[in-house]
Amino acid sequence: MILQDTIVALASPSGAGAIAVIRVSGFESITIGALIFQSISGKDLNKQKTHTLHLGHIVDENKVVDQVLISIFKGTQSYTGENTIEISCHGSTYIQQQIIQLLLRKGCRMAQAGEFTLRSFLNGKMDLSQAEAVADLISSDNEASHQIAMQQMRGGFSNEIAKLREELLNFASLIELELDFAEEDVEFADRTQFAALLNRIEFVLKRLIDSFAVGNVIKNGIPVAIVGEPNVGKSTLLNALLNEERAIVSEIAGTTRDTIEDELVIGGIGFRFIDTAGIRETKDIIESIGIKKTFEKIEQAQVILFLIDSLQLIIDNENTVKIEIEKIKNQFPQKPLIVVTNKIDKLNSEQRILFDNQLSIINYPLLIEISAKEKQGIDDLKNQLLSFVNTGALRNNETIVTNTRHYDSLLKALDEIQKVKFGLQSDLPSDLMAIDIKQALYYFGEITGEVTNDELLGNIFANFCIGK
Amino acid sequence: MILQDTIVALASPSGAGAIAVIRVSGFESITIGALIFQSISGKDLNKQKTHTLHLGHIVDENKVVDQVLISIFKGTQSYTGENTIEISCHGSTYIQQQIIQLLLRKGCRMAQAGEFTLRSFLNGKMDLSQAEAVADLISSDNEASHQIAMQQMRGGFSNEIAKLREELLNFASLIELELDFAEEDVEFADRTQFAALLNRIEFVLKRLIDSFAVGNVIKNGIPVAIVGEPNVGKSTLLNALLNEERAIVSEIAGTTRDTIEDELVIGGIGFRFIDTAGIRETKDIIESIGIKKTFEKIEQAQVILFLIDSLQLIIDNENTVKIEIEKIKNQFPQKPLIVVTNKIDKLNSEQRILFDNQLSIINYPLLIEISAKEKQGIDDLKNQLLSFVNTGALRNNETIVTNTRHYDSLLKALDEIQKVKFGLQSDLPSDLMAIDIKQALYYFGEITGEVTNDELLGNIFANFCIGK
Repeated sequence: MILQDTIVALASPSGAGAIAVIRVSGFESITIGALIFQSISGKDLNKQKTHTLHLGHIVDENKVVDQVLISIFKGTQSYTGENTIEISCHGSTYIQQQIIQLLLRKGCRMAQAGEFTLRSFLNGKMDLSQAEAVADLISSDNEASHQIAMQQMRGGFSNEIAKLREELLNFASLIELELDFAEEDVEFADRTQFAALLNRIEFVLKRLIDSFAVGNVIKNGIPVAIVGEPNVGKSTLLNALLNEERAIVSEIAGTTRDTIEDELVIGGIGFRFIDTAGIRETKDIIESIGIKKTFEKIEQAQVILFLIDSLQLIIDNENTVKIEIEKIKNQFPQKPLIVVTNKIDKLNSEQRILFDNQLSIINYPLLIEISAKEKQGIDDLKNQLLSFVNTGALRNNETIVTNTRHYDSLLKALDEIQKVKFGLQSDLPSDLMAIDIKQALYYFGEITGEVTNDELLGNIFANFCIGK
Repeated sequence: MILQDTIVALASPSGAGAIAVIRVSGFESITIGALIFQSISGKDLNKQKTHTLHLGHIVDENKVVDQVLISIFKGTQSYTGENTIEISCHGSTYIQQQIIQLLLRKGCRMAQAGEFTLRSFLNGKMDLSQAEAVADLISSDNEASHQIAMQQMRGGFSNEIAKLREELLNFASLIELELDFAEEDVEFADRTQFAALLNRIEFVLKRLIDSFAVGNVIKNGIPVAIVGEPNVGKSTLLNALLNEERAIVSEIAGTTRDTIEDELVIGGIGFRFIDTAGIRETKDIIESIGIKKTFEKIEQAQVILFLIDSLQLIIDNENTVKIEIEKIKNQFPQKPLIVVTNKIDKLNSEQRILFDNQLSIINYPLLIEISAKEKQGIDDLKNQLLSFVNTGALRNNETIVTNTRHYDSLLKALDEIQKVKFGLQSDLPSDLMAIDIKQALYYFGEITGEVTNDELLGNIFANFCIGK
């Protein structure tokens, strides 16, 4: 890992905007900045204090490229922990390119993905799990995933791991000490206290490992399969669920970002709606391929929404709806299934009687009547969907694991801790127990980055965006 | 125009990136910022100096929204000329939204398009033509348009206009003075000097008006029609022309911006390539509609590129190429037409003889042999294209008019100046001449914004992006 060179990248989103920010980090970043910057007030960039802003022009061989603001961050007080400047320029891509090219000519090189955060980690400004949280924070698109990433970035997760690691380390050194006095058969490490610690570690590890299920779902969104015939009102329902939660986006800064229509945020939790074609019984081969696909999609989902047209239900004389519901329940007995009867507003009073009749035949407990068009019953549906998400840990501000890498290390650490525990119970010699403890410590260290290697770092930071 | 309120907008491009910048301007911007910001070192934002940077958290009712950097700019030292803060946050759209919504709840309102620059103008930080140059600068995508916008933003254009206006104003007041002494028939304004000034103004105005033709073309790109049959190598040619000029884009910050394939920058000048289907003679009705369309496209172009396949030319026994060239030249005698023979690398020595034979039959002077695939002759073609652009004014760093509004005002000012000149020559009474002078001054003032109204400002700033 070479840290001597000075790196540059666009830090603001690509494309044209009012302004753009170009970030330069490395020992020579201020010196290089001074080469291409002419302060309005004639100041020398090299002589300015940290955390100050300077108005001036970027100049390339007497040609003015742009009027810019330069921020200066010195040494350990910057994000990366090394001298950094940020150039806030006019947001045309042409200007962005010109300034970056100029910096490259003056001795910078293009930063790799995540290299600023990598440097921050290597310079001891944050541990590895915090660095990983930076990427999660940037990609978070709802309250829950944002909250988890924020907690992790502020060190909540690392602190929990580090504390356990330290206590375990204490015992490890006592046991190591015993090895030095092996012939005298002394016990420096109190076995009762040690057993208690192991139990505590085991408990925390299990809780963290368990939290991964909810954490993963929150990070990636909860998959919901919508089963329903065409024209049953799927897109109207999605729009109704969407309402105010998305509307705010269009208010901000002429955003033209492509809304992925089937990803919605409900009560701060992301849901991914998977459209399926329904599973109406058929002898047609092509349609039965469709049914197979529907089942495959339901397989991936965590919740099933069975959407029906209330008017159609009245004339469902062959109880196809009841049969279909049973078929899905048989196939997926564990997955929660909500029957949603749409277009309830269209029923007149005579039809309502027939409708209620049908419902009593179907006799399904988890049933919600809605009118997607008139926005009736939508809140009931939202609450029902949220009830399937175990947000307990989230509400109680507990540490939640969302990262597969952490999850793997935690599983391995748990395995080692259980080995140690078993060793303790079966009076295993200290030297053998010490090996398992060391291994557990290793896996703890993998999470926070105390144990690391270039390949691991490469894998982690390659997933970052450039400029961060 | 209400300037009392505090406005907020996303200033960086929309979408997710490493960081995003939210700009807040107005008397209360720092006070409002202090309400939602907790400095890491416990500093009070209200007590910080201008042009300083502060690390801390954005906090919404004890919930940490993000770790951010806040820049402070005070009063006249900011872009807008009023208190401003810029919040540099993590670049997720969720975080951007949360912070902007929090600011809205704390008393800010969403900025309208261009409102920061409008405030800068209203607060006397820049004149109107400079404000307009800001928008041009942001949308500039090549060296020439960037250079013109930069010059205008730095006051080049305004200075030229302001100087003329001042000299004219001097004479105007002398002539006004004469009106006060009308009965005594004195002449304070030296008629010879005045005539000389009018000539000078007329000369400058004409030069500026003439510059609009080249300015407009540079701003919008020079339209080039490519006439050629399918498979003649149009897209290969465009790629060859594109080469290093665009390649750099992909190096920067994982940019995924959609490249509009037929807009290229050659030698710092933008060219728009318009694909046409060719004009081969036909009796088929549908094809003759195609020919009509080709002619319509050529009509819009400023240069015609007639692209042919060198191998095909050898077997063109009916001289269709020659006939087509003549047809285009007949239709558009004024438009420069370049005949480009592509795939020259495929000719063997025998074929080369036949090829040269055909060229002598065609006998067209402006002919360039290329191989788009092998990148032969591409530089010749580029130079030829550039030779059609009158970059004299650009090279000499003269003021170039690119703005239709300025062009209109200049035309009107010229008209008035010529009236004054005629009045002077025909001994028009001072009071009548004074009216024309006033009118000329009015049009000058329109350009720099000394004369303005809400509707005009509304029109100008509505074309800005939000956040600028």
